Amino acid sequence: MSMPVPAGPKGTRDFFPEDIAFQGFIFSSWEKTCACYGFEPYEGPMFEHLELYTQKSGVEIEEQLYVFKDKKGRDLALRPEMTPTLARMVASRGTNLKLPLRWYSMPRLFRYEKMQKGRLREFFQLNLDIIGISEVSADAELIAAAIDMMRSLGFTAGDFKVRISSRTLLEELFIAAGLSKEGCGLLYALLDKKAKLPPEKFNHELTKTVSDKNVLGKIAKIFESQTLEDLQRLGGNLPALTVLKELFETLGLYGFSDYVTFDIGIVRGLAYYTGIVFEVFDTAKSMRAVAGGGRYDRLIEQYGGPSVPATGFAAGDVVLAELMREKGISPARTGRSSCYITALDGTKPADIIAVAQELRAAGISCEFSLKNLNVSKQMKNANAARSPYALFVGGDEARQGLVKIKNMTTGDETMVPRYEIVNNMTRLFSLNLT
Amino acid sequence: MSMPVPAGPKGTRDFFPEDIAFQGFIFSSWEKTCACYGFEPYEGPMFEHLELYTQKSGVEIEEQLYVFKDKKGRDLALRPEMTPTLARMVASRGTNLKLPLRWYSMPRLFRYEKMQKGRLREFFQLNLDIIGISEVSADAELIAAAIDMMRSLGFTAGDFKVRISSRTLLEELFIAAGLSKEGCGLLYALLDKKAKLPPEKFNHELTKTVSDKNVLGKIAKIFESQTLEDLQRLGGNLPALTVLKELFETLGLYGFSDYVTFDIGIVRGLAYYTGIVFEVFDTAKSMRAVAGGGRYDRLIEQYGGPSVPATGFAAGDVVLAELMREKGISPARTGRSSCYITALDGTKPADIIAVAQELRAAGISCEFSLKNLNVSKQMKNANAARSPYALFVGGDEARQGLVKIKNMTTGDETMVPRYEIVNNMTRLFSLNLT
Repeated sequence: MSMPVPAGPKGTRDFFPEDIAFQGFIFSSWEKTCACYGFEPYEGPMFEHLELYTQKSGVEIEEQLYVFKDKKGRDLALRPEMTPTLARMVASRGTNLKLPLRWYSMPRLFRYEKMQKGRLREFFQLNLDIIGISEVSADAELIAAAIDMMRSLGFTAGDFKVRISSRTLLEELFIAAGLSKEGCGLLYALLDKKAKLPPEKFNHELTKTVSDKNVLGKIAKIFESQTLEDLQRLGGNLPALTVLKELFETLGLYGFSDYVTFDIGIVRGLAYYTGIVFEVFDTAKSMRAVAGGGRYDRLIEQYGGPSVPATGFAAGDVVLAELMREKGISPARTGRSSCYITALDGTKPADIIAVAQELRAAGISCEFSLKNLNVSKQMKNANAARSPYALFVGGDEARQGLVKIKNMTTGDETMVPRYEIVNNMTRLFSLNLT
Repeated sequence: MSMPVPAGPKGTRDFFPEDIAFQGFIFSSWEKTCACYGFEPYEGPMFEHLELYTQKSGVEIEEQLYVFKDKKGRDLALRPEMTPTLARMVASRGTNLKLPLRWYSMPRLFRYEKMQKGRLREFFQLNLDIIGISEVSADAELIAAAIDMMRSLGFTAGDFKVRISSRTLLEELFIAAGLSKEGCGLLYALLDKKAKLPPEKFNHELTKTVSDKNVLGKIAKIFESQTLEDLQRLGGNLPALTVLKELFETLGLYGFSDYVTFDIGIVRGLAYYTGIVFEVFDTAKSMRAVAGGGRYDRLIEQYGGPSVPATGFAAGDVVLAELMREKGISPARTGRSSCYITALDGTKPADIIAVAQELRAAGISCEFSLKNLNVSKQMKNANAARSPYALFVGGDEARQGLVKIKNMTTGDETMVPRYEIVNNMTRLFSLNLT
């Protein structure tokens, strides 16, 4: 009858209640930031038709898909990212949506990848998008939200940096250097992989992508640039440079200059980005990016929708959690219930259940032993449930119409009239909240 | 370049922000009830190894699975129910878990089924389980939680009924009528499908399962029973009858007698149930069950864990939403942001962003136009965002150090000092909350 305990699939996680306390802190920080910035939630299916991904997201995504067929033989794929679903949903409403949209989602996503630090096959992402604004003010608002999301998790300016560049600027520079438009696309994909490739391999790929030695020399110079001023000396007052400068100025108005930096090496792998791109890294760059995003002004149109500008970013829970652990950020775990109702010897279930249902009707979390146990065993269970309060119902107190409330942290005990339990507990919890 | 807007997969849903308002009301009611009853959240992977389902859940589940292979050729399946994952997780901790567990989850699940009213291929479920209590008090606590979950959604005693039976009682009755243990298992599966089969088809299947005419006659009599008293006359004081009576008495202590009824027709299809079983239906039984569950005392052991009793139930969001719509329950949609910051003519972005970041730092949701728009266009956007308040920053007021706050519902306007904005807004929202 029995068997060895089966394991969950590789690259996935079981979340026991103690894990949920940690994970829930990430989710609630995400939600709080999105609400503060006036973003609304949306969700989509956990899988999509395969073509949704293969047509627009570039080669890297394809290799990582969990693909399957439904019983009619249609190709489906577990979603590896949320943007194609978002673009499909926005496109499906055509011109009926009142722009700008400020939308967020916290999708669960799936990528069949080699597992390593900060990388699992099943993970969660925060996705934030502003749709309908071509101005750089939208990119600034998004980057500000990314920074406040990190701050709400407990990170400071010393912990992370938003590294910003612009695909438009790169394109303007590359084309000035003699590269074709198509060459630019291939170069982005290669540059995005730079950190993951051995230098010789990267250089080999680079000379394959850019065969002209003269062009290659110019591109090398571009990538040696550390600041926007360096690039200005190299390429003059290019239009995209002016936009990027405005972005940094606006982020200064948010008070976030310390959190952001220009980084020519940020290009993003996905094919659909069109303008400003950015990634969030821990200061030491010891891990993968914790967030990344940028402008994708042509994607919604490519999915058959109207031509609307869009910009967005995504942050993954796995790298964030790694970084939180490294920085010693560990949210407290609250009690399973606020109040453990303890039956003194001889108390009938009727009396216990009555108290429980009164408290629950008032929105106060409580539980009681479902077995007939002595008081000391009930207290052990109350401790296991981490309940901050215990009520003692029955006994001598009951004959006087009283109930004892015990603060399980301080040990303080007070007697209150039976009919005043709900009022007293409500008062205790509103005091604790302020 | 462009293409027709792609559709999402059949049987799945897109949740636009207005849909999330409805769905979020279901989720928050679920969470509120679970918290009030002292249940803790857990989660698991969205897919499991195929064997996890095929070995224990019976034939019906197998036909409905979305199955796929990973790149190493292992068979995986999108999860069609949560109980096998729960049992696997509990089993994996062996005797290290402090019992009883009071656990809940709100998994997204997948079943490849024919679509019909109240049934989709991708849906959400509330799962509530008490593990480690063999007493019927745990079944009562769970059924009470199911009832309070329905009440928190806005349903009343007139809207739904919990229909309760006991597999142990059925087994005791069937065996007394002359059926074998194995025959009982086959009969449960058949009885569970009774409502979905045409009467002739059901009778045909029944005579195939129970060939002995004498036994068949006795079983027919059992199913004609309307009350526990009828069954007592038929089978005497069977042990399971005493347990079932205690369950109804305990539910009376919760004040829930009006919500529950005995129903001999409730058996549940899944193979793993062992004792009390129940389903929640709308009063008219015009729809599928909105919730169902029961005792599964042997499952955790079957997954290689210790021998621990368990009882649980699940409620699906799709049928619940159908019933809510039928009863006219429609939660209100709140504003995208609490406060729309309006720039009066000539106000610089710096002044607007400063106000926004002060409010956001205080946890107050706000937004502003990311385009340079005149005041009337900004007001249109504030209405589209359904913001309950608008702030007007700049102009003559700014020269006096003042800012105008407008209540967008009543039209009331007040002037406050610029440095008092956060205090004023905080006060307005704490007033609204009480």
